[in-house]
Parts: sequence; structure tokens; C-alpha cells
Amino acid sequence: MEHTIHFLPDDVRIKVEDGENLLTAAAAAGVYIHAFCGGDGVCGKCKVHLEQGEVKSDTAASLKQHDYDQGVRLACKSTITSDVTIRIPETIKADGKALKRQPKTTRAISARSLENLIGTWSIDPPVGKLFLKVPPPTIDDNISDMQRLMRTIKAAQPDSPEPNYDHPQLIRQLSTDLREANWEITVILLHGKRADEPDRIIAVEPGDTTDRLYGLAVDIGTTTIGGVLIDLNTGKIIAEASGYNSQVGYGEDVISRMIYAARPGGLKGLQGKVVYTINTIIEDVCKKVYISPSDISYIMAAGNTVMAHLLLGINPRYIREAPYVPSVSQFPLTRAAELGIAAHPSVRLFLYPCVSSYVGGDIIAGVHACQMQESEEISLFIDIGTNGEIVVGNKDWMVCSACSAGPAFEGGGIKFGMRASQGAIENFQIHPETFDPMIVTIGQSKPRGICGSGLISIVSELLEAGVIDPQGKFRRDLNHPRIREGEDRWEYVLAWDRDSMIGEDIVITEVDLDNLIRAKGAMYAGYQTLLESVGLTFNDLDRVILAGNFGAYIDLERGIAIGLLPDIDRDRFYYLGNASMLGCQISLTDHRRFRGRVAVRTLMTNIELAENPDFMNHYMAALFLPHTDLSLFPSNKANRS
Amino acid sequence: MEHTIHFLPDDVRIKVEDGENLLTAAAAAGVYIHAFCGGDGVCGKCKVHLEQGEVKSDTAASLKQHDYDQGVRLACKSTITSDVTIRIPETIKADGKALKRQPKTTRAISARSLENLIGTWSIDPPVGKLFLKVPPPTIDDNISDMQRLMRTIKAAQPDSPEPNYDHPQLIRQLSTDLREANWEITVILLHGKRADEPDRIIAVEPGDTTDRLYGLAVDIGTTTIGGVLIDLNTGKIIAEASGYNSQVGYGEDVISRMIYAARPGGLKGLQGKVVYTINTIIEDVCKKVYISPSDISYIMAAGNTVMAHLLLGINPRYIREAPYVPSVSQFPLTRAAELGIAAHPSVRLFLYPCVSSYVGGDIIAGVHACQMQESEEISLFIDIGTNGEIVVGNKDWMVCSACSAGPAFEGGGIKFGMRASQGAIENFQIHPETFDPMIVTIGQSKPRGICGSGLISIVSELLEAGVIDPQGKFRRDLNHPRIREGEDRWEYVLAWDRDSMIGEDIVITEVDLDNLIRAKGAMYAGYQTLLESVGLTFNDLDRVILAGNFGAYIDLERGIAIGLLPDIDRDRFYYLGNASMLGCQISLTDHRRFRGRVAVRTLMTNIELAENPDFMNHYMAALFLPHTDLSLFPSNKANRS
Repeated sequence: MEHTIHFLPDDVRIKVEDGENLLTAAAAAGVYIHAFCGGDGVCGKCKVHLEQGEVKSDTAASLKQHDYDQGVRLACKSTITSDVTIRIPETIKADGKALKRQPKTTRAISARSLENLIGTWSIDPPVGKLFLKVPPPTIDDNISDMQRLMRTIKAAQPDSPEPNYDHPQLIRQLSTDLREANWEITVILLHGKRADEPDRIIAVEPGDTTDRLYGLAVDIGTTTIGGVLIDLNTGKIIAEASGYNSQVGYGEDVISRMIYAARPGGLKGLQGKVVYTINTIIEDVCKKVYISPSDISYIMAAGNTVMAHLLLGINPRYIREAPYVPSVSQFPLTRAAELGIAAHPSVRLFLYPCVSSYVGGDIIAGVHACQMQESEEISLFIDIGTNGEIVVGNKDWMVCSACSAGPAFEGGGIKFGMRASQGAIENFQIHPETFDPMIVTIGQSKPRGICGSGLISIVSELLEAGVIDPQGKFRRDLNHPRIREGEDRWEYVLAWDRDSMIGEDIVITEVDLDNLIRAKGAMYAGYQTLLESVGLTFNDLDRVILAGNFGAYIDLERGIAIGLLPDIDRDRFYYLGNASMLGCQISLTDHRRFRGRVAVRTLMTNIELAENPDFMNHYMAALFLPHTDLSLFPSNKANRS
Repeated sequence: MEHTIHFLPDDVRIKVEDGENLLTAAAAAGVYIHAFCGGDGVCGKCKVHLEQGEVKSDTAASLKQHDYDQGVRLACKSTITSDVTIRIPETIKADGKALKRQPKTTRAISARSLENLIGTWSIDPPVGKLFLKVPPPTIDDNISDMQRLMRTIKAAQPDSPEPNYDHPQLIRQLSTDLREANWEITVILLHGKRADEPDRIIAVEPGDTTDRLYGLAVDIGTTTIGGVLIDLNTGKIIAEASGYNSQVGYGEDVISRMIYAARPGGLKGLQGKVVYTINTIIEDVCKKVYISPSDISYIMAAGNTVMAHLLLGINPRYIREAPYVPSVSQFPLTRAAELGIAAHPSVRLFLYPCVSSYVGGDIIAGVHACQMQESEEISLFIDIGTNGEIVVGNKDWMVCSACSAGPAFEGGGIKFGMRASQGAIENFQIHPETFDPMIVTIGQSKPRGICGSGLISIVSELLEAGVIDPQGKFRRDLNHPRIREGEDRWEYVLAWDRDSMIGEDIVITEVDLDNLIRAKGAMYAGYQTLLESVGLTFNDLDRVILAGNFGAYIDLERGIAIGLLPDIDRDRFYYLGNASMLGCQISLTDHRRFRGRVAVRTLMTNIELAENPDFMNHYMAALFLPHTDLSLFPSNKANRS
């Protein structure tokens, strides 16, 4: 259920889901409210006035009863349960005058309909079940049990070629299975990877089990592994689970994992950890819907090149060293149980192929999900992260690259950087005159640090308010307690110690700004280099597709404001979210769509940026907010003025 | 080198290989020589006179020097090393008159040229090697190692589709292997089972190893397992070995093996035993030519249905029980090492498919070897044994059957029956007037028993000499010390205790004759039933193909004389020998010929004789020597007279 919030005096309306936090909604709408403590209810700054409707207020602790009765609420402690009108109080300056509010355009662009991007898919999974009543043998018809089974399958699906079989256990058990089931059995058929390949019988179950057919889509991230259990008879998601990749204990990023893999026993250890995490996820999803892990008939997985190598127990050592070569880029269909995964011995695990050492199966899966390989339109596909991946192309050609942006987007190299979890500042506004912050944290708790989307908010707001200059330096002349010279050069205090979870001031420093600028510069230089390699410019792009969990949280205007995203028509942007998982889900549900992955892999040409002089030039030019070449950023205020 | 022996006074000439034993040669030529002790030199009966040329005499122990100087030799102790003329002395009867010799037609038909039967084959094995100099990666060309390998293969054989790969160890080792070999490697490619299937990379070896490519053909018999090592670069057999199937300890025939397999641990035990024997054979052949078992790149095997099930660890229990159903009839290409065979983990073992529970892969391999599936001519393919297998057909159709002949041909149910080994009477003649025997044993030793081919010789000679009647009963009126009433009804003494290895009289009894008649009757009834099922008679047959080791030793005339073989034009008979092994060898050498096996399997229709009333009628009619219906045996003397 959706509700509308009408913010006054800005006169901004926003639609939100039932149960949304009012402070978060205001931040998303670009409406500034004083909020120093991230939503914990302690600073008492985020007082708003309820003019119409009602909100659910968790606590009135910081409010006097009189104020509450007058309609005053703490935004951070209010939950939207109906349409409301909210008035933000005027800020009273030191001189007693009310500070004039400057209404902003809504910055958050709602996700555009993805339908024409990802299309539709059928319920026609790569694995199927067939219930068969096999006529028992007689002396006049005593072909082998397997031939008999084949003949019955042929009769059931006369237009399909005869299936294969090769699993020793299946063959060894077949005669007993058929007789114990009184010749009424269900076969599980694995469809060929190519259209002309015959099916393969992977298991035989007694009786009619056709109503139980499940598949697991797995996104194997460096940090997080997610699993989605799909009922392959309906195509519906019936359970989800995720967890930290247990390899995290051996290093945060792929480089440290590769270093660990080179140690004695390291590869085996890392493989065991990823398998352990996948098994935990399998256990979790199965428990939720009361099925057994052995009821899962197919596992469709994608991960970056290093994750794929580690899962299959392939040493990734040559990925790390120039010229950055993976051992394998197309992974054979593997029996999941052979890797140690808690699955029926017959169950196959498919791992999306990768293109190069740093453009992995997660990217192929994402591009495959949004059908770039089917469209005339030219798309720029972006997955922002420590290793940012970029793909440009359409149904006739594709080029891709990975650029090493550094860990800033994931909180690395940022003094108070952290992952997007409880207490992370995920949204931020600055009052253009008082320079006071509006801080929104994940989980509405006191702030603990800054996650990637928070960082982009902070930098773009500081830039827009003129607190920092295009080189990421603080203006030294602003006499404001929050802007000060700190240990690591100049800094802005996002939260005072009393308002923070960690009991110390949470700040953003010039060093942090440098790191962010380098990260966004690398991404932007990547787009440019890739486009130039095919003789295109940003204006030639029909679509910009933001993939990845981080991409899903980027505020488009802010991303453009700092020069992380290209400054083109906003209507061309799409938020795809976890595209890798989406690709797995689609492939798991529709094996005709699944086969399209081959086109993606075949079309894609990798361009190495690491030692590319064009990239270096673009990178140097991009170490500015938003860029040294402002003609690339027409909506920048410097151009507008 | 061949030599000619000219026997006088019979005026029979025979060509023999250098080194042939003179007694054996005489027996093969149908020339009767007194010989009571099987060739051990002790009875001193087989004196012959050397008229021309010279023989090598192992010992003159039983000869006086005077006799030796006169040219007298013991046939059993003489080896042919040049062309010779040999005179057989007249037998002096009790009345002092010389017994007139009755020259016989040569009974042994030499093997007809097999060329138009088995044809020719190319050296184009199902597995090949390709030496590659792989260009090392650079920053501008950094596709994965596997893709690089694929590209190099594609460049080397541009017309072949891209090969597959799936062996985890191959993938895990590839990057290291390539670099350690300095990018110069040999790939082992497994060709697709079907023509349109792509190759599969099964192994990568450092450097150029293309001159070392070996394959092993294995014939898995119930009793004996044979192995033939082939240099797949030349197609030449370079080593052979064979040994008793170690399963023999668990029972002589397939029935007792199946009974054992049903016991706890029995299946596993039997599988281990056959694998052990195969491993011994692999060790033997490899030692002979100084290669390592891991140099063998393919194993092509055939065996009967029970042997195939046991090798793959599939319980054969339903083969034994009506309606006699095997679990599987087409066996998947298996990694030999997974079965415990001492082979490189990548090496595949192919097992010829079977048709039914008692028409197995050995028969398919044999039929495949002689190209019945390619010919317009109608062939009758016979493999005589405890389970006799019969196939009739041509390129358009085939029917097959197994008939349970009982173990007589392998020495079972025969009082002094034994396998064809040292001391077995393998050839026999009876003097038509004195009724004295000419006994030839395997290994020219004192007789120990009677093997299958000996049994047929004995019965046909006794029948021809009128010592037994067409019902297999001894003539009671022949007053001869060798013909007597024994423990088991009447019998004929083949060797007196003093001439036998076992220190007792070796006899053939009426019970033995009964068993043989039932065995040959079952075979003959099988031919008839099968031919009738397709509306044919013996006269419609263009070829009769005798397969199997036993078949190779059957004297054609004698086989016809007792009604084991059909009485048709001798020119239509072919001795194929170990057809199963031959099929494996051809398939191992030429994968185009190999693919022809599919046609054999597809064409063949099994006809169950076990409960077939036509078969029972034919069987009853065949319990006579040669048959109740003598019109089927035009060359029988009853017809001639």
C-alpha cells in the first residue's frame, strides 16, 4: 500500500510504501530536516508538524506532551501509515529571523519500469520432471530397463530426441527403483545447454513428484552470497536467504583472497568457505518452505571471475599477475555435490561464464538479464564497486572493461567508511545556510559511519553548498564549528560525539574526498575510454543501466553532480538492482532465455584499462568535481549560471 | 614360414607353419596315426617313417638308435622345420596282415580369407593427440588460458567444431601445465561418439607426445579376459596378454556369478575381481613394451551382458529371473579410473552395448567386426558356448537369440571334461577297423581330460566308425577292450591309466554323449527357430560365421557330422575367431568403423527362446546325431549310400 506525504513549505509530494520512516522519506524527497543523530530520537532536532493525517510515533520521549498534542512529531520516530501533510518548521537563526527554505527538485528518480529492459520469460526451466507409468517387462518384451524407460519417455514426448544418461548411481539403482515404485516413476530431465542437445536423465523418483520442482539461483559476491529459491512449476520465488561470504575472514576483496589462495591449503580453505556459505543458504531457504535440499533440482549461479575460480577449486593466481589471465572463462556444468554442496548427487550447478579476469559471470548474468544482446538500442551497463565493471553495446557488438576504482564506494579508505549496515549514514543533506546536517542512517540508529550512498550524498551536498570546492578541498573561510582542521587535513563533522554510536565525532576528511574523487574518476574515465574505443560519445547512449546493490542506492542527481554518472537525459537511466541474481533467476526459470547467455559471452570483447594510456588521460581529467571538462556536465550549476 | 608335409600312403598334403608338431599336423590333416599317450612320447605308438626332408626330434628316448638311423621318428616328438614326406606304417593285425588304410578327405577347412568379411579400416582412432605451440598471453590478448587453448586448437583444425572439456582436474591444472611446459603442449582429444558431436579435451601433456598414443582392446569373457595393446599411431598390435577372469573363484558361469552378486558384498567383490584382472593385463602389456599404464588413452571393451553389469557395478539380478531383463543395454562412456582401473583419470572406457540379457556386447562387437550391418548378404553368426549366441541378418534387419546349450562345450557335465588347456584332448581319430585311438593333446602331454573341440572330434569319429549309434548309444556287440560298460553306463576308453596324466582310464560315457547331444541340439534348434522367425531356411544363408575361441577350433566336417553346424556349402563358412576382441580392435583403431556399432545395435531384435514352443519342437527333433530329419544333412552317409 502506498501513501502520499505532502511536505510544506517546500510543497514536495512523495509516494512511499506503508511503514516508511518519515525522516528517510524526507531525505529521499530532497526535503531538508534537521537531524543530527541519524534517527535515534536522541537529538530531538527533527521536529515536524503534522498538519493532516496521522503517523505512528514510536516514542514521544523527546517531546513534551503539550507539543505532541499540538501535532509536533519527531520525524525520525514516525512511521507513515496513511496520507499525511507535514510542515517543516522554519529554522530560527541567531538573529531571530526565520531562515528561508530553498525547495529542491526531487532528487530521487524512481526506478523506471524495467519491463522493456528485462522483458518477459516463460516458465520453462532448464530442468523438468516427467511422470511415467512404465509398462512392466514381459517375456515377449524384455528390453533392458533403461531402454524401456527411454521408450516410455519417447512415447510421452515424441518430438524430443532420446535423452542421455550417464550417472553411475542412477544406472545402478534404476532396476530397483522401477520395481519398488511399481513402475510408476518421475524422471528428472536436464535440458541440453544448446537447443539441439538431447535431454539428460539425472534422477528417477518413485511415484508422481512433478508438483515438487525447485531451483536455486545463487549470486556469489565477494562480500555477500544471496540465494533465491524458485518453484520451477510456477516460476515464483518462494524463499530467499543471504549471508556474508565466509571467505571474508580471509580478506575483504578479491585481491586478498587471491593472495590467501596462493598459501598452502589456501585454495582448499577458500573453496570450503564459499561452499559452506552456499550450504547455509540452501539450509535457510529449504527450512522456510519445508522442503529438503535434495528437492532442489538445479543451481544457477553467477559470480565474479575470482569467486568462480575459487568455487570450482581453480587457483586464480594468474588473474592477479599481468597480463591478468583467468584459467577458464566458460565453466563446465558441474555436479554440485562434487564441490561439496549439499545437493542431490545428480544436481547440476551452472556458473555463468566470465569474459576476463575482472569482468565476471555476474556481469554476463546482468547484461543477459537486461537483454542487451537482443536490443538495437545502445546501452551503457555499469556496476559500481571496488572493481567497477562497464559494458557498452547492443545486439551486434559489446565491449567491456573493469576499472579498479578502489574501495571508497564500499567504505574502504574512508576514515569512517563502513558497509551498508545498521548505523551507516546512507543519506545526507546540508542546510544551505546553516550548514547543519540532516543525517539518515540505516536502521534509524545513531550513526556509526558512512556507507557508499551516504558518501555520495555527503560529497554532492558539500559541493552544492559550497563547503568544498571542485578539487575536494574545504573552504577555509567558513567559520563554522563543524568545518575544522582535523588530524587528517580539513574535515566536516557529520555527527558530534554525543549524537554518534561510537562516542566520537564522525567526520568526513579531505583524504576521504580525495579517495572518492579517484574512485568516481576511474569509473567515469572507464566509460569514456570504452565509448571512444567504439567511436561513440555519451550522447549516443540510449540507456544507462545501473546494476549492483550499490547502484540501486545511488541518487541519480547526486551521482551526476559529483561526476560519477554521465550527465545525460535522466529518462535514459534504469536501476537494475542485483542484475546478477536477476540473470540467474531468469535463466533458472526459462531455459530459452538461458541459452541467450551464449550470445552475450560471444559478443563481448574485453578492453584492458590497466595499462591503457587513453584511460590514464581521462582519469587525470576526471579528478575534479564533477570534472575538469564542464562541457560534459551541462546541468552543472556553473553551466546554468 | 610354411612347410608342406606329404603323408604316405594316404597321399595327403598339408601346409603347416614352421615349428608345427607332426602328430598335431597329421590329426589336422585327417591322417590317422596310432597315438595313445597324447604326445608325451611314452606310449611309443606314433612311429612314422621319414622318407624325405628332416624333422627336429626332441628326444629319441623311446626309439632304438637303429630305428632312428632308419628314419623312424615319433610323430608326437617331431617338429616340422622343412618340407617333408612322411610314411605312416601299415598296422599289422593280429593275423599278421597289414590293415588297409582308408584315406580320408582333409577335414580341416582352412580359414577362408576374412578380408571381404571384416573389410579394411583406417588408422583414425576415437582418441587423438595434437601438439600445439600456444602463443602466450599479452596485455592486449589476455583471454583465459582455456579459451587460448581452444583458439589454438581451432587454428590447428579449422574445420572441426570447438571441443568440449569438463574434467575438473584438467581445468584446475591447465594454467600451471601451460606455463610449466612453456606453452608447448599436447592435447588428447576424445572424438565424439556421434559424427556431429564435438571433440572433448581429456588431457594436456607437456611437450610433444604425439608419438605416444596407445589404446587397449579388452575382451571380458566369463572365463578369460584378454587385452590387446595397440599403437594408435600405426594401428599395430604391440602387445597382448590374457588371464583367467578372477571372478572364476566365485563361480564358473554367469549364473553362479549372478547368484554370488546377490550376496551381501557380492557385487562389489565381483567388480573388484574383474577390475583386478584388467589391471593385471594392463600391467602385463605395458611391461612388454616399456610404457606406463597412464600412456594408454582409450580402453575399448566388450563382454557379455552379465560381465558388463558386473564391471560397472550394476546388480544383474533381473537378468536371471524371467522375463530376463538387463538394467541397462547401452552403457555410458565411463572414466576407467572411476571403476578402479589403473588408468589416467581422463581415460574413457567404452563398453559395447548389449541387446538382451544373454546377447551381449561381445556379440555386438563380433557382428560389428564382420560388418553384417553393411552387407546385402544374409549371414548366420554363431558363437558356441554355454550360452550360445546366434544372429541372423544383413544390413536391413537382424534377429538374435541366445540359447542355453549347457556347459558341455566347455567341458561341463562331461566326466573327463576340462577347459582347453595343457593335457586336454583336442583332436582325436579312431582307426576304423582296430578302433584304436589317435589322441592329440594340447601341449603334447599325457592326456588329462577332454576339451570342447576334442569332444566333437571324439563323438563324430565314434559315430562315423559306427562305435555309437545316432542316439549316442554304444554298440553293445563290439568286442573291444576299449568299449565297455562302466560306472556311468557304457563308455569308450580314450586313454588307459598308464598313458594318462591322472593315473586312471580316461573315458567318454553315454552320459557325456547325452549332454553333448543336448548342447548341439539346442544350438541347432536355435538356428532353425531364428531362421523361421524371418521366413528363411539354411539354404538362404550366404555366410555362416563362426565366432568365439571355441568356434575357431571346430572341425567343420565334424561339426556338421554331429549336427552342431548346418550341412550347407562349406565355402560359406568363415572362422572369425575372437570376434569380440576383433570388434574392439577395429573400433579402437578407426572411429568411423566404431560408429557403425550403432547400426548393429539398432538393427538387432532379440527373440527369446526360453519359453518358445517352436524352439522346443526343434530341440526335441535335434536330439539325434546328426538329426532326426536327415534331409537337413545331405552329406550324411545315410543320404550318400
